[in-house]
Amino acid sequence: MSTPRRIGTTARFSDIVIHGEVAYIVEVPGSSDADIATQTRELLDRLDALLMRAGSGRHLILMATIYLTDLADYDTMNALWDAWIPKGSAPSRACVQVAGLAQPGLKIEIALTAALASFPDTA
Amino acid sequence: MSTPRRIGTTARFSDIVIHGEVAYIVEVPGSSDADIATQTRELLDRLDALLMRAGSGRHLILMATIYLTDLADYDTMNALWDAWIPKGSAPSRACVQVAGLAQPGLKIEIALTAALASFPDTA
Amino acid sequence: MSTPRRIGTTARFSDIVIHGEVAYIVEVPGSSDADIATQTRELLDRLDALLMRAGSGRHLILMATIYLTDLADYDTMNALWDAWIPKGSAPSRACVQVAGLAQPGLKIEIALTAALASFPDTA
Repeated sequence: MSTPRRIGTTARFSDIVIHGEVAYIVEVPGSSDADIATQTRELLDRLDALLMRAGSGRHLILMATIYLTDLADYDTMNALWDAWIPKGSAPSRACVQVAGLAQPGLKIEIALTAALASFPDTA
Repeated sequence: MSTPRRIGTTARFSDIVIHGEVAYIVEVPGSSDADIATQTRELLDRLDALLMRAGSGRHLILMATIYLTDLADYDTMNALWDAWIPKGSAPSRACVQVAGLAQPGLKIEIALTAALASFPDTA
Repeated sequence: MSTPRRIGTTARFSDIVIHGEVAYIVEVPGSSDADIATQTRELLDRLDALLMRAGSGRHLILMATIYLTDLADYDTMNALWDAWIPKGSAPSRACVQVAGLAQPGLKIEIALTAALASFPDTA
């Protein structure tokens, strides 16, 4: 059986894991002191880059879990999310308010699975 | 490679996404002002309908994540859940209390993956 | 299509579900009154046992979601996690603070998907 392919691997996590026809990605914004609009834009930009590296794309997301620290940020996040998702390709999506994220000031974290546009080179 | 199949797709989310041999589903109850028993029953009914549309069923759930807003609702939810799951086919299950769900009054949300009973028509 | 294989199945959940080339596992520590170091060690030991039964291993985890009830436990948990993950094989990882877990005193719960080292016997 195939071994998972890992990209951006530290002692704690990988930026991307690929197995079978699915990529597994978790990401946070770059700046943990910015407002929700900035954090969401940063996070979606990072997801674009990771999805491209994985051989996937934002139109191929299967399921996303959005963790917010404050539901007051819900509408602003959604407006950016809705505009980011290509028409007709929205994933299954859970969105919950958590009691906290790993870094103080961090307002959003997204975990997702995505289909691959093509088999990764090393599969 | 196969493209994901999406059902019930809005600008924000799909009710069902199917890829490979797995269906991805997230659902909430229909009424966000009812008690936990009513909300749980509504949600499980909706999941039945979605699983059927996906070519799956409640006996084929792989992993479920149950988000509750109040652990005081845990026992009531569990009694309905246990009765709903066919004997011998319970999934891996995480159940956590979150700080909030997207709509005020909403007490439960479930995200799950499920195996397909048959390949979807368009696969 | 293949039927999911389930191990350790109760009316509510299974310890392991296997489908395709993926194992689905959710676990909690054995003792819900111990400190975070003890609870994390117990949980990682249990995950080792479950992954072995699934025909997988800690080097094959695809995505992990770590639920903590107190972010003050983050550093202690991470030190044990980082030492537990074999070099170069860290999964995608989300870590969030939830408002509560199912049992009072429980400080950590982990949900994960893992690749299989070999096809399960009954596949």
